Amino acid sequence: MMRKILVIGAGKSTSYLLDYLLGKATTENLHITIGDINPAAIPTSIANHSHCTVIGLDIFNDTERKDSIAASDLVISMLPAHFHIKVAEDCVQLKKHLVTASYVSPQLLGLNDKVKENGLVFMNEIGLDPGVDHMSAMQVIDRIREKGGKIILFESFCGGLVAPEHDNNLWNYKFTWNPRNVVLAGQGGTAKFIQEGTYKYIPYHRLFRRTEFFEIEGYGRFEGYANRDSLNYREAYQLQDALTIYRGTMRRVGFSKAWNMFIQLGVTDDTYSIENSENMSYREFINLFLPYSPTDSVELKLRHYLKLDQDDIRWDKLLELNIFDQTKVLGIPNATPAQALQKILEDSWTLKAEEKDMIVMYHKFGYELDGEKKQIDSKLVVTGENQTFTAMAKTVGLPVAMAALKILNGEITTPGVQIPISKEVYEPILKELETYGVNFKEYEVPYLGYNPNSVIT
Amino acid sequence: MMRKILVIGAGKSTSYLLDYLLGKATTENLHITIGDINPAAIPTSIANHSHCTVIGLDIFNDTERKDSIAASDLVISMLPAHFHIKVAEDCVQLKKHLVTASYVSPQLLGLNDKVKENGLVFMNEIGLDPGVDHMSAMQVIDRIREKGGKIILFESFCGGLVAPEHDNNLWNYKFTWNPRNVVLAGQGGTAKFIQEGTYKYIPYHRLFRRTEFFEIEGYGRFEGYANRDSLNYREAYQLQDALTIYRGTMRRVGFSKAWNMFIQLGVTDDTYSIENSENMSYREFINLFLPYSPTDSVELKLRHYLKLDQDDIRWDKLLELNIFDQTKVLGIPNATPAQALQKILEDSWTLKAEEKDMIVMYHKFGYELDGEKKQIDSKLVVTGENQTFTAMAKTVGLPVAMAALKILNGEITTPGVQIPISKEVYEPILKELETYGVNFKEYEVPYLGYNPNSVIT
Repeated sequence: MMRKILVIGAGKSTSYLLDYLLGKATTENLHITIGDINPAAIPTSIANHSHCTVIGLDIFNDTERKDSIAASDLVISMLPAHFHIKVAEDCVQLKKHLVTASYVSPQLLGLNDKVKENGLVFMNEIGLDPGVDHMSAMQVIDRIREKGGKIILFESFCGGLVAPEHDNNLWNYKFTWNPRNVVLAGQGGTAKFIQEGTYKYIPYHRLFRRTEFFEIEGYGRFEGYANRDSLNYREAYQLQDALTIYRGTMRRVGFSKAWNMFIQLGVTDDTYSIENSENMSYREFINLFLPYSPTDSVELKLRHYLKLDQDDIRWDKLLELNIFDQTKVLGIPNATPAQALQKILEDSWTLKAEEKDMIVMYHKFGYELDGEKKQIDSKLVVTGENQTFTAMAKTVGLPVAMAALKILNGEITTPGVQIPISKEVYEPILKELETYGVNFKEYEVPYLGYNPNSVIT
Repeated sequence: MMRKILVIGAGKSTSYLLDYLLGKATTENLHITIGDINPAAIPTSIANHSHCTVIGLDIFNDTERKDSIAASDLVISMLPAHFHIKVAEDCVQLKKHLVTASYVSPQLLGLNDKVKENGLVFMNEIGLDPGVDHMSAMQVIDRIREKGGKIILFESFCGGLVAPEHDNNLWNYKFTWNPRNVVLAGQGGTAKFIQEGTYKYIPYHRLFRRTEFFEIEGYGRFEGYANRDSLNYREAYQLQDALTIYRGTMRRVGFSKAWNMFIQLGVTDDTYSIENSENMSYREFINLFLPYSPTDSVELKLRHYLKLDQDDIRWDKLLELNIFDQTKVLGIPNATPAQALQKILEDSWTLKAEEKDMIVMYHKFGYELDGEKKQIDSKLVVTGENQTFTAMAKTVGLPVAMAALKILNGEITTPGVQIPISKEVYEPILKELETYGVNFKEYEVPYLGYNPNSVIT
């Protein structure tokens, strides 16, 4: 019997997802229906596959949406997170399983009782950060606990970067995912975490100055800045007793200190529109954020404002982005500063056709076992193959596709609105991911924590 | 015939207001009804006045509110700004004049047509900043224009400070008004203004580093930081052609640089609650915002984080506030950082019974007349008499009271929802304010502007 999977939204992250499902379509008796607002954009190699149907699907059209969901056995929603809820409500009503790579919203969680009653699996956060991070962290945490260990420290960092062979600008960074999210990173709330039992709060304008360093063998050094709320998973991971919980984003060393210049200037602000932005030059844009002077150049004012010595590498990083150019024009009417900055960055940070991306992840697990403190560091590097088969698409799409198939095959059965933190889910998926080159390497290291000696601070 | 004024809300700022009205009650045939949620708090000297009635008034009780408004000829609302609208709607319906010291809300402005139809005067923003600043600025602006001058620069700064004889702490600051507003000053949006024809934007975390200095004869130096939106009055003042429009808040020199330490730490944030704040010491509170260290003291971490040299006076300012004290406790459950900071500041910055406040205001008017650029600086200092008859209560309350009487007496007649920028309003009120010691001093100074020579920036 043919099992029908409806994939809603065929964006950037679905190359591996669709490849995986269509590759197994014959042996696993799958038929994939891709529903997208813009069906013409689906590559013909996919659209013409004998086990694939492409349909135009406007999720705001109730009939279209309900009909296509009714005709499927399982729904994969790759829509932006805030669009899931309508799909999820239909899935409850029509009794279909659902898989997404997005964060569980309070609305979605509100469906939990009904989802359970109907024996449905609503699997979420099963892409990359959230997703692979949950699974790989819980695997180690459960293993430590089974041995009788107690988790006292958990740190987890992840980053989407450019592959080393194409890492050729001063920022060691290019856009491999949504540029807007990069520009707005860290906004919308103070970063909160726990270090050695003490709550720590970092305001946005200091966030990129409180970094931590990481070494990944064969890939060199990275740095991490804190995510907004490291404490969200304290309960899910059962880390209530851990003295340190810290989640963050990874960049190459030096990125954060340079990025902080933009925050200090105020050019990452997305809350107001600039007057006359459309015909404004990059230079004029930067000058909006500097004091007026009848004599000093924009360059000098910026150097002084940000206290940049003449041999500070950050200066070269700014020059590389052409921020003082009088001829380059924003070209966006009523742009917010963040939109204008994004435009400037896209000039320099857009991946070229032949360039590859890279995903890095770094977990630290500190634990106590038999009165001894120990630490495991677990590290992952995934490199993309090209601009379609990116490391991001792989690590987001494969776990989603695998979860979908395992739900259909009755390997994942526990019903409810969930994230992939139970052994039933993470064990088979992490194992299968290894065959696709998603391999964590573990290192037993001396436990350092933050507090080798107890000192009053 | 007795004219009846209803004063709703008898808070801190009503001492001069009530004194003025009751002082003229006999000669002007006034009866004052004070409606307050807490009538027992009205001093007996006022409550027992033969021309005064005090009533308990809950403005959310429709009957109470409408009845008391119906019984009056004019209403003065000294409620917090967001409570005015119900009173205003009743005033329209019951055809009563209204006077407030608050900003005109869009809702209130929505009543303008009806207010005009009924020939009513709804006078707002007629206290201090907004109020005295509007009137004094428009008086000079209109005078310059009548001579044929064109305004090219307008700056206006105002501050509530402690009187010189009680200005005895390192911050040169004490709370003379709502402490919460001081802690949150500058938050909620990027500061915007125009300098020499160029828009300028300052993010919150740089706001207190971009100050301007002022000299007031006999009172020394002050500094000013930008208010959130200097451009709000561009239209009302008809300053569309002015190359520089800049409004701000005045402090003693050095306050802003020191205050910026709190912003950098993140302790002015009011958007989240601190865990376990109630029994937290001042020291523990500050440590929440500093990196963890097993060995370094909170003092050293803060010095390093804020890059404070050991002879930096800002260090002494922090010590003066006891922020490193391990024994003083916040005592507020679920406090936001801003609430916690306010508590710490109130320990040091609360005015003592015998201490007096001071209001300072500084306008700069740059203009072109007969091809020549000129400038007038206009300055005001008002000192309080005691903790009841404060400079703040005087400059807020007297213009409100005067406007109310002049409306009743038919001296102010132009109907509509308005602010005091027309000659009909500001001339008689400024003149009368002078008899109460509210005197602006004007100085003709060379026009400097910001741009003596035209240079490409």
